[in-house]
Parts: sequence; structure tokens; C-alpha cells
Amino acid sequence: MRIPLSFAVTPLAIVCSMSASAEKIDYDHQEKWTPPPAIAQSPVDIRSDMAIEGDPEESQEIALRNTEAALKVVDNGHAVEVETNGPDARIRGRHFELAQFHFHAMSEHTFNGQSFPMEGHFVFKAKNGRLAVIGVMYREGEPNRLAGEVLDALEGAHGGEIEREDIAVMLPANRSYHHYLGSLTTPPLTENVEWYVMDTPVTLSKAQIASFNARYSHNNRKIQPLNGRPLVRYVQQ
Amino acid sequence: MRIPLSFAVTPLAIVCSMSASAEKIDYDHQEKWTPPPAIAQSPVDIRSDMAIEGDPEESQEIALRNTEAALKVVDNGHAVEVETNGPDARIRGRHFELAQFHFHAMSEHTFNGQSFPMEGHFVFKAKNGRLAVIGVMYREGEPNRLAGEVLDALEGAHGGEIEREDIAVMLPANRSYHHYLGSLTTPPLTENVEWYVMDTPVTLSKAQIASFNARYSHNNRKIQPLNGRPLVRYVQQ
Repeated sequence: MRIPLSFAVTPLAIVCSMSASAEKIDYDHQEKWTPPPAIAQSPVDIRSDMAIEGDPEESQEIALRNTEAALKVVDNGHAVEVETNGPDARIRGRHFELAQFHFHAMSEHTFNGQSFPMEGHFVFKAKNGRLAVIGVMYREGEPNRLAGEVLDALEGAHGGEIEREDIAVMLPANRSYHHYLGSLTTPPLTENVEWYVMDTPVTLSKAQIASFNARYSHNNRKIQPLNGRPLVRYVQQ
Repeated sequence: MRIPLSFAVTPLAIVCSMSASAEKIDYDHQEKWTPPPAIAQSPVDIRSDMAIEGDPEESQEIALRNTEAALKVVDNGHAVEVETNGPDARIRGRHFELAQFHFHAMSEHTFNGQSFPMEGHFVFKAKNGRLAVIGVMYREGEPNRLAGEVLDALEGAHGGEIEREDIAVMLPANRSYHHYLGSLTTPPLTENVEWYVMDTPVTLSKAQIASFNARYSHNNRKIQPLNGRPLVRYVQQ
């Protein structure tokens, strides 16, 4: 099958450009076909004026489940990471299991050019291998209970256990988001990732942000071009 | 966020390999990060002994809708293609619109190493840019009404209109499939495609197959390695 390298919003755009191309493809020398260029990378700047509404014919909701779980905190050499086993989610009609969450400072995504002091990435995986990541912006304010426990657990040489905690306290109660199709933000930068960046920040205390930054203060990838990808807005009522 | 280059079935596998890696990432020289290798390409050989069950916690169904539509047939220079505007589908809980379908000979996907004389690709697009392609195997047997109309329309110099037809006659009534995450099968080979390859072939007459082959008799890409990607089986009851 063939589709031009386009992320146009309407299928009609595909149709038009396909019929116009009439490009020859050399099936006798397939070894010369070039591999896909990396044009759908993450993070991106989320420009609210670019966002479109989600498809009204499908569920746009994110529902977290089984959010109370035993957690394991590790310093993986480039980020503070919390491994999970149990929490899952229904994301736009499909079922995903949470594998881990970790933190970047500064934020990787930006909103209309604005960075936040930190960003959390909640990494989910579906049975077909699809990855979905919920991104959460953290700003300075009230301390966060779980963030405190994560920092305490790190005091052990290479991380430690948290017997049981509700991971939902590190996500905003309101699940409004901006969604786009992107990539891992570290090598291998694989483009197989659905991004859901929460609109509502969550607070960490100034001391908590400082403690995370003492370990990693610039583990954020630069902003990547959107290259015409749709940016879908969902507002939870 | 970082995940190793793994399509392991269970999130636990991610967790284990992530905690073991502790790999350094050089944020001061991001320009040296390598782009993603093309490891999730299409087509693949569908080995039924490799298939796993779909996630019981989510809908696995494909439901086509508005299948009767005006069609435009074109020879795009490398395939016979039918442009559509109207048909849509619900695929595993999400909503997609059909942009076009086109034909390859021989088949691109194979089942346990077996090729079919032709394969149809029904190319759907969601509002977030996600592509989903339903692949249909064609074998020799009874003639297909729509295939006949497509071939008739091609007799006009560069294709022609079909006033109204039900595209569903070119898909099997039973929607059982094998599903995996893959790519376009022609350059740019972009890896942003959900594949649903129907288990049940549809018949074309010997003369119809010969007529398609008179235009394109080897526009099929070679089989690509699965590279550990999950292959999900869905059996419609």
C-alpha cells in the first residue's frame, strides 16, 4: 500500500495527492528503497491555536484503574524512574498496562512555548505492542506525597521499594489533554508512541523540584517539529 | 521517555530490561542521537503458530459502515486504486474513514509462507492521523461484481467513475483477522500503520485476476522480519 508522506487532517487530502502522484516504484530493486525518515518525533510544542477537536464518533476518555500498587524506584542513569505492576488504563477505547513512570527536568513538551520545571511520563503498553504515554507537567506549589516517597526511596543506594501508594496523586484530577502521534524522546527515538499531554499541571514543592534536579537537571530533549501532524484537543467535562 | 527497542508482549519485560540498562544519554549532544531504524516494516509472513489472543478487556471488532458509495478508479502508476469518500469503520473502538483501496499481485502478506494471487489494501485514516489498513487475500474462484466494475472503469484512459457500489463485496463477510503494527509497503515506508489482515480470502475469477495482472503483475514488496512484534489473532464468532 502507498500513502504520500502526509499527515493531513482529512482523508480527502490523501486521496487527492495519491491520484495526482502516479509515481513509478521499482519493485525489481527494492533493496534501494530508502528507510522512513524520522518526521514524527517527540517532544513538540503544544500550540493551542493549532489543536483540533477529537472525533465525536469515538470515546476520547482516559480512565486510570487499579492505581494503588507496590512501586519500585530506580535511578536508571538518565532519569528517576518508578516501575509499576498492576495499574492499567482505558485510553480511547483500548486497554493499556502501566509499565513505569519517570521524570524529566525541564519539561520536554512545552505549551505555547512555555516550559515547566519538570515533566512526568507515564508509559503504558497494549498487548499489540502499542505504546501510549501520558505526560504531566509539574509546577512549583504544594508538595506531592508520592513525589516525597519517591525521593525518600532514592536515598537507598540504587532505589527502593514503596510498599503501596496511589499513583493517581501524581496526575491531575482533570483528564483534559492534547494528543498526537510521536516517538520515544530518547534513543532509539522509535515512532510508535501515542502521546497524551495533560493540560492541568500538578504541583511539587520547591524542595522536591530541587531534589529531582540534584540528580538530573537537563534530561530533556529539544522540541521537534510537528510536521503537519494533527494535534487533537480533548476537554473533560 | 525511554524504552528499549523491544516489542516484548508483557510490560514486565520492559520494566526488567529498563532497570538493567542504566545507560547514559548525552543530552549535551542531542544532534548525534541516531534516528529510529526501520524495524517494524510491512508486509510480514503471518505465522499462525506465533499469534497471541487479543486483549479480552477491549473490543477487537471491525465494523464497516456506509459501505455503499460513489467510487473513482485510477491507475496510479504502480497499482490499480479506487478512491472513496463516505465509507468508514469502527476498528477496535476507534473511528476511521476509508480513503482508498488498491491491489497488489502477488499478495504482499503471506500466511504460513503461502502467497495468494492478489491482495487488496483498504486504507483507513483516523482524525489523529493514525492509519489502519485492512488487507484482503484474493484467490481464484467465483467472479467478484465490484472487481468487474473496477476493471471496466479502467478501460477509460486513466480510470473512471463507478456511480454507486457496495465496497463490502470485496471483503470477507467474516471479519476474523491477524493484527500487528507495521508500515506502508512502498516508499516512504512510514511506520505508522495498524494492519488487520483478514483470515478469509475473497474470490475473483481467473479472468479478473488475469486482467489485474495485465497491468501490475509484481507490485508486491518482499516479506519483512517481524522482529518480535506481537501478532494478535481475532476470531469473529
